[in-house]
Amino acid sequence: MSAKVWLVGAGPGDPELLTLKAVRALREAAVVMIDDLVNPAVLEHCPQARVIGVGKRGGCRSTPQAFIHRLMLRYARQGHCVVRLKGGDPMIFGRGSEEADWLAAHGIEAEVVNGITAGLAGATQCGIPLTLRGVSRGVTLVTAHTQDDSSLNWAALAASGTTLVVYMGVAKLGEVRDQLIAGGMRADMPVALIESASLPQQRECRCDLAGMQQAAADFALKSPAVLVIGDVATAAREAVLAISA
Amino acid sequence: MSAKVWLVGAGPGDPELLTLKAVRALREAAVVMIDDLVNPAVLEHCPQARVIGVGKRGGCRSTPQAFIHRLMLRYARQGHCVVRLKGGDPMIFGRGSEEADWLAAHGIEAEVVNGITAGLAGATQCGIPLTLRGVSRGVTLVTAHTQDDSSLNWAALAASGTTLVVYMGVAKLGEVRDQLIAGGMRADMPVALIESASLPQQRECRCDLAGMQQAAADFALKSPAVLVIGDVATAAREAVLAISA
Repeated sequence: MSAKVWLVGAGPGDPELLTLKAVRALREAAVVMIDDLVNPAVLEHCPQARVIGVGKRGGCRSTPQAFIHRLMLRYARQGHCVVRLKGGDPMIFGRGSEEADWLAAHGIEAEVVNGITAGLAGATQCGIPLTLRGVSRGVTLVTAHTQDDSSLNWAALAASGTTLVVYMGVAKLGEVRDQLIAGGMRADMPVALIESASLPQQRECRCDLAGMQQAAADFALKSPAVLVIGDVATAAREAVLAISA
Repeated sequence: MSAKVWLVGAGPGDPELLTLKAVRALREAAVVMIDDLVNPAVLEHCPQARVIGVGKRGGCRSTPQAFIHRLMLRYARQGHCVVRLKGGDPMIFGRGSEEADWLAAHGIEAEVVNGITAGLAGATQCGIPLTLRGVSRGVTLVTAHTQDDSSLNWAALAASGTTLVVYMGVAKLGEVRDQLIAGGMRADMPVALIESASLPQQRECRCDLAGMQQAAADFALKSPAVLVIGDVATAAREAVLAISA
């Protein structure tokens, strides 16, 4: 009996962005515990498994984290191969290490499988690089979700010179804008608002920092969405235009 | 004749971290142009293809970017399916959009396939989450490589409260340390130096910010390596100890 839990990143939505290792874990699984934001199409790799939905979307009815912990532990102690399937990557806004640490403390081995994070996939589908020579030497991924009480210094982020990718920010657009502008970021900094990253229904809205809340309202932007804030959001396009001219 | 170029992220090294989409591209390829840092084991997916090495490692003999551009264009115009295979992800320190834009300006369609970036995979293998509730609400990926002349504000990064992942930093450890400490980061900030991320030969060295240059020398740290700087580098481990106690 191999008591093991896989903590697997299912990627941003496009089922083809699963890794080969994630597919292997799914094929071995007896039990798959799946988050709301995971595309159920990836379950084609585990027809043999019992699938349990354990979604925790902000604002909706949700499965308490403690219950998820206990459920993983119960199935693993019964000797089942358990896959905990999360949107994106387990180690970026995914609580992967919390769950791995909790399991380890209870004597269960956990293995984390990385996934493509939504901000990267969404930007790529829009033709936006997260870094670009001469424009941005780095990228910062942050969550605007306020349940997390760790400090985030928006003024420093505004000054950092990195591309910003904001997760869980749809309800906080005004706040993010105000903090970044107060921190010295240009009001006309280019922004891409990207809904349903990497899925066929992906939608993108281009605007600037000052106008992003109004643009999102006009666009009827819905969660899940990522915000890409930085000169990269237009630089690539301008480069093409310059070469083509 | 489908004149197309795939710009494919091969991931950090572990061949199982390829995406299904990357595998599909490799299977369709007539020509594969492969960077030095890509694990050649991934070529098992394209036995039919002509493989051309176009490495560009810093400090070594390298293939000029203009030559790579022309080679991609030539094969694509001949109607071949071309895969340009890059380490990590093409849109993070990968020049993916430069190449896509250049091809687009010459009438050739390019499709980018995301990959797992080395900093994420290396940290994961060390049990380090890049974000962690109550500890770090974000993560910044930066390159220390100075050929890129775009601005990077290390003081702002030090103040940002995000986990820092530094690529191409092995030769710049003293400089990175000095800039971050001058910017106000704690001298005892935990650091993990990770060599050969995700490969069987991955090695990790734990130290603190003030001591990282000496630790790397004692450890004989070699490129490619990533530096993970932030409280996450010890927080997860401490959480386990607290639960276990």
